[in-house]
Amino acid sequence: MPKKSERTRQRIVEAANRLFYHQGFNQTSFTDVVEAAGVPRGNIYYYFKTKDEILEAAIQYRLDRIKQMLENWTGDYRTPIERLQRFVDILSNSADSITRFGCPMGSLNTELGKMQGPLQQQAENLFRIFESWLSDQFAELGYAGRAHELALRLMAHGQGISVIAHTHRDGAFLQREKARLHDWLDRLADGDDACA
Amino acid sequence: MPKKSERTRQRIVEAANRLFYHQGFNQTSFTDVVEAAGVPRGNIYYYFKTKDEILEAAIQYRLDRIKQMLENWTGDYRTPIERLQRFVDILSNSADSITRFGCPMGSLNTELGKMQGPLQQQAENLFRIFESWLSDQFAELGYAGRAHELALRLMAHGQGISVIAHTHRDGAFLQREKARLHDWLDRLADGDDACA
Repeated sequence: MPKKSERTRQRIVEAANRLFYHQGFNQTSFTDVVEAAGVPRGNIYYYFKTKDEILEAAIQYRLDRIKQMLENWTGDYRTPIERLQRFVDILSNSADSITRFGCPMGSLNTELGKMQGPLQQQAENLFRIFESWLSDQFAELGYAGRAHELALRLMAHGQGISVIAHTHRDGAFLQREKARLHDWLDRLADGDDACA
Repeated sequence: MPKKSERTRQRIVEAANRLFYHQGFNQTSFTDVVEAAGVPRGNIYYYFKTKDEILEAAIQYRLDRIKQMLENWTGDYRTPIERLQRFVDILSNSADSITRFGCPMGSLNTELGKMQGPLQQQAENLFRIFESWLSDQFAELGYAGRAHELALRLMAHGQGISVIAHTHRDGAFLQREKARLHDWLDRLADGDDACA
């Protein structure tokens, strides 16, 4: 695809992605995307025939960004505990967004999960790539026999904190629970799995 | 309201409540409610002018049922630890639904949380009545100084488990994590708050 077309397509995907996060997929209309992208409706049809196709592209965009972020973390942080702590830092870095809109992938999966279908399966991959990477870190930390279990548990902790913080618009709760997650990981790194 | 009207109104509310849980509020149309309730559209307008009004009634219906359930538990179970464990049992009693549709109140709050407004505040009450009751139990268990904190943490645990189980359609994960929640509570009841 020529450069100009690729940039336009990207603009549509990024605008739609933001709307899906802020409003929800079902609550977002094709017209909402047209207005947010600042691209004429006819031009959008050149790239996407339906809202589902735009969501598919938005999920792929998120997957690519997550994949890149995890590769960066793997390179930037030398030890598994540092990488795991960096993951938990997402909670505070995105505290305002989470409190206002919920977790981007948790809320999307919650919405699509009621709908089933191929889009739900694609959205599930957002969790899977994190869980796979977290599992690698827990294995390297010395918990190879239960690495996947710990990865899922850490994801569940993050998701639960996000749901409560979002429901109550409570950023202070999010920060307190995040601090406890850091402690939980530090204990695991010290070989203390009493609370794991 | 005459008995017949009250029964019809209730039928609409219960049908709508089920649809909102299974499909999501935004994904449910007024027509969906008409068909599910088996009540002519004109008759529904007698009770509810908009979908928002139906949601308001559905939330009130849930609040009333939760309030009744908590009163029953308070009466049926004599100790705070038994009551807390009964709360955690919701996870396995509703395992199939949670795996298929997510937590009913978590998913509703996640959806409405992006929309803000009075409906979001009403939906938040679903969490608040549980948290208030859980807080009473933790206080009675001997943790009066941190009862509310523990209540929120237990809610967060339940929500996180529900999101992961729903995302991955993983009922086995839900059961394993529920078992760990029971252990966590037992330890608290024994005065061991190392993992609290």
